[in-house]
Amino acid sequence: MNKKFKNTKDMKRNFIKREDNREIKEILIENLNEKSLKKSVALTGVIEKISQTGGPTIFEINDGTGNLSLKGFVSPGERAYPEIKEGDYVKVIISLEEFNGEIEGDIKKIFKKIDEEKTKLKKEIENRQRERAKVNPVNFLFDDPILLKLRNKFINAATEIRLAIFQGRSIIIRHHCDTDGYSAAFALERAILPLIEKQHMSEKASWEFFTRAPSMAPYYEIDDSIRDTAFSLKNVAKFSNKMPLIIIVDNGSTEADLMAIKHGKIHGESFIVIDHHKYEEDVISREVIEHINPFLVEESGTKMSAGMLCAELARFVNPEVKNIEQIPALAGLADRIYLENPTAVEKYLEIAKKQGYSKELLEDISLVIEYISSKIRFMEVREYIEVLFGEPRDKQKNLIELMAPFIKELDEKGLNIGKSNAKLENINGITLQLVYIEETYPGFGFFPKPGRSIGLLHDNLQYEKKLDKVVSIGVMETAMTFRATDNSNFSVHDLIKFLNEKIPEAFVEGGGHKNAGSITFLPNKKERIVELVKEFIKKRTI
Amino acid sequence: MNKKFKNTKDMKRNFIKREDNREIKEILIENLNEKSLKKSVALTGVIEKISQTGGPTIFEINDGTGNLSLKGFVSPGERAYPEIKEGDYVKVIISLEEFNGEIEGDIKKIFKKIDEEKTKLKKEIENRQRERAKVNPVNFLFDDPILLKLRNKFINAATEIRLAIFQGRSIIIRHHCDTDGYSAAFALERAILPLIEKQHMSEKASWEFFTRAPSMAPYYEIDDSIRDTAFSLKNVAKFSNKMPLIIIVDNGSTEADLMAIKHGKIHGESFIVIDHHKYEEDVISREVIEHINPFLVEESGTKMSAGMLCAELARFVNPEVKNIEQIPALAGLADRIYLENPTAVEKYLEIAKKQGYSKELLEDISLVIEYISSKIRFMEVREYIEVLFGEPRDKQKNLIELMAPFIKELDEKGLNIGKSNAKLENINGITLQLVYIEETYPGFGFFPKPGRSIGLLHDNLQYEKKLDKVVSIGVMETAMTFRATDNSNFSVHDLIKFLNEKIPEAFVEGGGHKNAGSITFLPNKKERIVELVKEFIKKRTI
Amino acid sequence: MNKKFKNTKDMKRNFIKREDNREIKEILIENLNEKSLKKSVALTGVIEKISQTGGPTIFEINDGTGNLSLKGFVSPGERAYPEIKEGDYVKVIISLEEFNGEIEGDIKKIFKKIDEEKTKLKKEIENRQRERAKVNPVNFLFDDPILLKLRNKFINAATEIRLAIFQGRSIIIRHHCDTDGYSAAFALERAILPLIEKQHMSEKASWEFFTRAPSMAPYYEIDDSIRDTAFSLKNVAKFSNKMPLIIIVDNGSTEADLMAIKHGKIHGESFIVIDHHKYEEDVISREVIEHINPFLVEESGTKMSAGMLCAELARFVNPEVKNIEQIPALAGLADRIYLENPTAVEKYLEIAKKQGYSKELLEDISLVIEYISSKIRFMEVREYIEVLFGEPRDKQKNLIELMAPFIKELDEKGLNIGKSNAKLENINGITLQLVYIEETYPGFGFFPKPGRSIGLLHDNLQYEKKLDKVVSIGVMETAMTFRATDNSNFSVHDLIKFLNEKIPEAFVEGGGHKNAGSITFLPNKKERIVELVKEFIKKRTI
Repeated sequence: MNKKFKNTKDMKRNFIKREDNREIKEILIENLNEKSLKKSVALTGVIEKISQTGGPTIFEINDGTGNLSLKGFVSPGERAYPEIKEGDYVKVIISLEEFNGEIEGDIKKIFKKIDEEKTKLKKEIENRQRERAKVNPVNFLFDDPILLKLRNKFINAATEIRLAIFQGRSIIIRHHCDTDGYSAAFALERAILPLIEKQHMSEKASWEFFTRAPSMAPYYEIDDSIRDTAFSLKNVAKFSNKMPLIIIVDNGSTEADLMAIKHGKIHGESFIVIDHHKYEEDVISREVIEHINPFLVEESGTKMSAGMLCAELARFVNPEVKNIEQIPALAGLADRIYLENPTAVEKYLEIAKKQGYSKELLEDISLVIEYISSKIRFMEVREYIEVLFGEPRDKQKNLIELMAPFIKELDEKGLNIGKSNAKLENINGITLQLVYIEETYPGFGFFPKPGRSIGLLHDNLQYEKKLDKVVSIGVMETAMTFRATDNSNFSVHDLIKFLNEKIPEAFVEGGGHKNAGSITFLPNKKERIVELVKEFIKKRTI
Repeated sequence: MNKKFKNTKDMKRNFIKREDNREIKEILIENLNEKSLKKSVALTGVIEKISQTGGPTIFEINDGTGNLSLKGFVSPGERAYPEIKEGDYVKVIISLEEFNGEIEGDIKKIFKKIDEEKTKLKKEIENRQRERAKVNPVNFLFDDPILLKLRNKFINAATEIRLAIFQGRSIIIRHHCDTDGYSAAFALERAILPLIEKQHMSEKASWEFFTRAPSMAPYYEIDDSIRDTAFSLKNVAKFSNKMPLIIIVDNGSTEADLMAIKHGKIHGESFIVIDHHKYEEDVISREVIEHINPFLVEESGTKMSAGMLCAELARFVNPEVKNIEQIPALAGLADRIYLENPTAVEKYLEIAKKQGYSKELLEDISLVIEYISSKIRFMEVREYIEVLFGEPRDKQKNLIELMAPFIKELDEKGLNIGKSNAKLENINGITLQLVYIEETYPGFGFFPKPGRSIGLLHDNLQYEKKLDKVVSIGVMETAMTFRATDNSNFSVHDLIKFLNEKIPEAFVEGGGHKNAGSITFLPNKKERIVELVKEFIKKRTI
Repeated sequence: MNKKFKNTKDMKRNFIKREDNREIKEILIENLNEKSLKKSVALTGVIEKISQTGGPTIFEINDGTGNLSLKGFVSPGERAYPEIKEGDYVKVIISLEEFNGEIEGDIKKIFKKIDEEKTKLKKEIENRQRERAKVNPVNFLFDDPILLKLRNKFINAATEIRLAIFQGRSIIIRHHCDTDGYSAAFALERAILPLIEKQHMSEKASWEFFTRAPSMAPYYEIDDSIRDTAFSLKNVAKFSNKMPLIIIVDNGSTEADLMAIKHGKIHGESFIVIDHHKYEEDVISREVIEHINPFLVEESGTKMSAGMLCAELARFVNPEVKNIEQIPALAGLADRIYLENPTAVEKYLEIAKKQGYSKELLEDISLVIEYISSKIRFMEVREYIEVLFGEPRDKQKNLIELMAPFIKELDEKGLNIGKSNAKLENINGITLQLVYIEETYPGFGFFPKPGRSIGLLHDNLQYEKKLDKVVSIGVMETAMTFRATDNSNFSVHDLIKFLNEKIPEAFVEGGGHKNAGSITFLPNKKERIVELVKEFIKKRTI
């Protein structure tokens, strides 16, 4: 396809003679270099972007191996070749020249491909892109049985991510707003950014074609989807970007995510989900390009967190990915995966230790991420997050050493406030610990947040009073958050069923794990629900 | 004024000979084209923008027919012609050259016009602009008597909008945050954007010189004005933009808008208001360039919504405006105009149907706009709004088909929550339906919002219990929202007067229509006001 | 160092002959001009920024007297001289050319300086920068004894600010969100912006390298520091900016500021603090480049506000600073400095009056700043603030004339609401005025805000009832705000100690002046704390 001339003189002589365009050699964009300047060549590709300047019209062509800007000029500000639209497949005869130091083409002739020729060219471009997107499968960092079962899904997901990058699409990563979610998203970010920079031949491209942002709700909600869509549509209109591939990590597998994903698809987005949360029924797989979740292969998500999955996936996307060796251990510790899959977490800890990350350091990092994420909320702050994850290592170390003790003091104070306001009650041998959050803590912006406060109180009560049958509840105006010990025979899911039978007019909803979760309800039902929760605990103990 | 040479050779010969600038032909910017390159010409105009680069100083001149960039160079980074300031009127002798594909002028000589000459030139430029701004009045889509009475106001408003665009001013549209407000703003946006793009010879100009944003309050409040002003002042300082023309639609006619408009005027903004809401006294007309409101011509705003008015106005601003045929019907249905002016709404529905919009589809679109607007709040999300309004039609259809049933379910749930918490009371044959909003609904972010919830409950109670004397009230800590049937003999305005007599220390304020409105009051007066509202209803029924 | 050739022909001849680079004359960037074009020269400096375009690699060199862009080219998009990194010290041989009207260098050869040569060059560049940064100390506008004691600190702070600008660092000013804070920040802004524009030879630079923003809390909190750091790290990554110098004004001296400052330093920020608030212990001086506070020289901060300090400092930073003569009087009046230091405020008032600012006008401006700052909150709105401070004067006048009467009406209404809801109680001759804020005022967005409302009520009660023993308290769910007369023998600081003894489980924190301050506590302790405050007042009167 790409025949090179022996020397420029040859080529020049060649072209000076010709009037007949069909003889001009066709080349691929990936083979252009400074020697190509001042020559006339032919290209086939798709016109991805047309912009009208006050002077020429600029056409951006993609031939499956790269992008090139082509100028067409009629008169200042007048649209050249108005018959050519974005998305058209064309053959162009151009002369190559330098403009501001970049290679550009000056259009001599442009032919629109239609019907069969178009179909053929389209296929050819896609083949070139698919060829580049193919994954060279690597070994896992650790051969956990769950990973081995998911291997084909990993290869497919990685291929699709690579393809989206090579097609010049934007990538949006949306993640759960906790340490596991940040870890999962960061691992993929490390793999994706270098590929984007290379594709667009520009460091700046990593801000134009990539976004990572936490979801505030524990699922990809319709609000997120509207925001991502509006933002993407603007980039399409303003910069002729393409609609993005959205990767949802540590969220995305449940029924609550369905509407937002469907909404995005209407606008031309496509989705990949990597999650480890439990769903009632798999309604997501049929809506997305790829869905990775241990539960899809009859395994439990409590044995493998999203950060562990995504660190492994990152290596499929980009075998040269850097600074992710500590991620699976960090995520596994943060999500308490060691309780159910100690082997994996220990293996990953070994790998992390080789990079200088002790268990204590990882736990401190996790603590700081939790604190910082409560402050930055929906902001991306990409470079700040890089520091948190060790780029550079010495700043990470200094930051953790300053912040971790400070946050531990905040936790200590939060625990003391909670303790002096908690109500303890014995229900058939179960110790029920009730805290009315809004009456107890100073409110918005206070750290530790309700869920964390209840966790601290719950752990402390077991430790201080040597109890193993404890249920701890944080009560808010329209929500409750729960923590229970194994021996308390509690279940958030059973409680929700129980409440919906007893008081359907409270519109109770919620979820989580058996021993840790939350519910929401209507505000004027709070006291009645507290009573019913006590009744529920009582019943379970008989 | 603008004499063309027969051919370039002629012109060249002409100029090569001359040393005397006075002989150089003066031309108009709108007549420049590629043939003008390499020639020396004279221009008269106003210097709108001066920017100092590290190299030459760039002067942007406007001669009333277009803009041109002129370079002046002394030494790198040194200000050329420091005696020339922004706003100066000048004659320049320039040679025309290409720079990055755009025509630019290289300043040979520049003369500042002063005194009479300045006044004359200023007048001349304005005349050229006013000439271009003149409206070719079109027929209305439907000859409603209200429109016919407002016709001259339409012509004036459209002329002023066109003039602002041709003067290179920015346009800001501020609108009520409901379907009628979005419809009104969108119709004008469709007319204005193509003119802006043409004026600045750039598609990107539509983001630089145009903004549309909802007001959160049901009027143009001082906060909006401060934000618009601060934003505009930055653009003036950073990009030498001009202070904007602000068009307030479906808001703007009342006393509550006065302060914000006065505030904007101090900073050099000017205003046009198109509204259909009732005012006590017209304090707005004297502050704005044009004020359109049915009440100004002794008609009622309940017979003509802002969306209907602005769709018609859009056709005066730009006779080639596209995709607005469905707007008046959409807005008329959303604002229940058919109750008072069924002829107009039916006529507009016929026009909409020709574009494939059935009444049911328009009602679904209206529902989705209401939902989406509650999610995007103050964000512009221009391209997303375009999809909602049918650009492109197939995406609109898919979006509505996905979202409308989903939102109807939310409404259904909201209704059920309301019903199981509403308190019914019979006061002399009137059914009073009270809902304590904060105790009933989950709070921030919940859809349907209070006003909508009360509307749903109000309609449902009439339907379910076959009642025609119903007053429904949503009670919040510092506000109430009302809905009443005609037969209940209610009046929000009378209630406000009654409350201000009985309990002036509650500082009751509010407004709306007779049968639908809201009030605010001080928090610790809530229960007393509930009692007084009951007393008010009782009195009205005797 | 910088020898100029007599004419270009000489120089050309000179260079055409040479092959040996060592003979090429070394020049300084500040001496470059249009005559330098087409010549080869040598420069020594540090590479501050490297950006890879699709064409050449751009190296930005700083030699201590200015910046210059240098192009290196291998093949399109390929990194030239990959051995040269940002931060390297080099000697380059370049030919000078024009690019888009700016002078640029084309790299012929580049030599990396290492070891001693590097150390020497680094030193040399720093010397050049320090030389330019040196302050020509001016006289104070008014020789207040406090200023005279602080003079050396002023010189040092001004030198460091100038040095940061000449090093091309960004400047962030963070200030207290009241009139004094705005005044302090604005005075420094007036001095700094012209220097930044000159350094970067661009008006736009003032937006790239400078930010001013209020802190919402009455100290520089960790949230501010995270946001400033994240923002700065992005600018470093995206635009190769340097980490900023952060100047904290009218905040920054207390223990509450320590953590945020330490956090910023980890990321490479440095700090200067100019404050007049009392601290328990000076923990700040050792963390910052310079710390200015009257308390550091055994003077009281109640005698000199931040706006007064910064207006004087601004004149050290930039002796040509404009439009700051009214600032010290404005700030002194706003912070009631005349109570403790009437001489200074009167002197400053005289200076302000010469600029046409009467006491009444300044008080009105102060009122409008307080109102506007409550509306714009964390936004910078630089150009709007300029109008408030008199740029231009006529718009300032019009704005104040429109807004001041409007705000006084809002104050009047706020006062009336407060009066009709205040509870008065006599405790041993002290009149205690209690207002339950949340139950009394409409809430979020209401002006006057709680602190201001209590101030108005407090002043009014003394005036109306001729009382001189008054304590006024605004009670909120988790906070109280206090105002007391001298004769009431009150003390916020003693109260905090008293409460922490009596009810440590309320976690009372707070501060302020003896007669004006605020405390926070846990929500369910409110009523108990009201009782204890009464007990405290009772005890103090016995």
